[in-house]
Amino acid sequence: MQRLNEYTMQNKEHITPLANNHISVDCVVVGFDGEQLKVLLIKRMGEEEGEVFHDMKLPGSLIYMDENLDEAAKRVLHELTGLKNVNLTQFKAFGSKDRTKNPKDIHWLERAMQSKVERIVTIAYLSLVKIDRALIRDLDNYQACWVALHDIKDLAFDHNLIIKEAILFIRQFVEINPSSLFDLLPRKFTASQLRILYELVYGKPIDVRNFHKKIAMMEYVVPLEEKEQGVAHRAARYYRFDKKIYNKVRR
Amino acid sequence: MQRLNEYTMQNKEHITPLANNHISVDCVVVGFDGEQLKVLLIKRMGEEEGEVFHDMKLPGSLIYMDENLDEAAKRVLHELTGLKNVNLTQFKAFGSKDRTKNPKDIHWLERAMQSKVERIVTIAYLSLVKIDRALIRDLDNYQACWVALHDIKDLAFDHNLIIKEAILFIRQFVEINPSSLFDLLPRKFTASQLRILYELVYGKPIDVRNFHKKIAMMEYVVPLEEKEQGVAHRAARYYRFDKKIYNKVRR
Repeated sequence: MQRLNEYTMQNKEHITPLANNHISVDCVVVGFDGEQLKVLLIKRMGEEEGEVFHDMKLPGSLIYMDENLDEAAKRVLHELTGLKNVNLTQFKAFGSKDRTKNPKDIHWLERAMQSKVERIVTIAYLSLVKIDRALIRDLDNYQACWVALHDIKDLAFDHNLIIKEAILFIRQFVEINPSSLFDLLPRKFTASQLRILYELVYGKPIDVRNFHKKIAMMEYVVPLEEKEQGVAHRAARYYRFDKKIYNKVRR
Repeated sequence: MQRLNEYTMQNKEHITPLANNHISVDCVVVGFDGEQLKVLLIKRMGEEEGEVFHDMKLPGSLIYMDENLDEAAKRVLHELTGLKNVNLTQFKAFGSKDRTKNPKDIHWLERAMQSKVERIVTIAYLSLVKIDRALIRDLDNYQACWVALHDIKDLAFDHNLIIKEAILFIRQFVEINPSSLFDLLPRKFTASQLRILYELVYGKPIDVRNFHKKIAMMEYVVPLEEKEQGVAHRAARYYRFDKKIYNKVRR
């Protein structure tokens, strides 16, 4: 009967109680505007030691009893930012016992939830999107906004860490699925936009001439007849990503 | 003040209560014995409708309030299998609302925990190990054993699904970190052992002749002077994995 008493046995040896945690989901929505990687954040207002403070957090919230994790991530992102039909990929659970230790976060949360807050384990999701006009306009009705990666200040909870890990995850994910990089680009893009995106994702500069050779070898990056218009510098050619060719070449 | 009332607002719209879940960790320890991929499982005994049943589960358990997720995974694996100093990588959270719906699992768990069980979200970890004699001998003191991947029957909870996703994760992980494949092999291995391992991980046969060419191109797979001994067929040459060369070649 040893196995039957597995949990109880552990309890006797271990004085600390079993964790009865809240579970939340947090969404790291990463976009590219042609120049910078940006993250979709939510404005937070709280009060600490009699002072009102303003800072930011990831779109995230606790899950309900009747929803699965993936459903919860979709619901929360929609409720807090208005975004719908966004692909969300679970990438990591964050469950440090200290992640809800900052009094500022605790008080804000307990006030928002109107109850005592215990430890929260959060399941983090990632989405890569194109930042186009429609996406910006829709945010006006929410306390949400796009913030450039290097402009992000101290966020609530461990959200800075979650974003850092999301970027590492993107790097590995793009390695396996190069097509996911094109989720970040507009339908037609210039070679330099694609190069800048590679530089941002890999966090290091790429030689321009070598990169043009690299593009020439990517059969699924198709040059268009169309060029940039109304630019001060020499108008650059546009390219598009061809999913059909990609699927043929990669399999 | 909109953000402050984020949670409360959601509560009013949503009738179902916020989830106050238990969190568990489950460890998928995958090993290779030269012929097959095996998973380390724990024997479970329970009683359902007056009948005693025997089945198996992954080594896993609830976490304590004072431990981080990674710490919990290490502790649980050690308590249930005796394994120590094993690299565990978090690979996915499983939080379907139905994952603790089977009465057999619920009753077993409630009896083991001596309390009512609510929903449990589990954080799954993966480890790749060599199955050597020391590893098998140590298991004798536990209700643990190695089961070949294709011999695994219906497991407790959603543990079949967790193992399936672990194998998919290994496939992607090996793509980015080919060196991790050698964690599964003995220090010296034959070309056919390496080929079988590739076949098992990718789930498809590999042409023998092409594979020998492939090995010749992997500078970090170094042929030894030593050959197999006491085998009925033609003795095969041994190879070893050279981490130094690997690090030089891959960077």
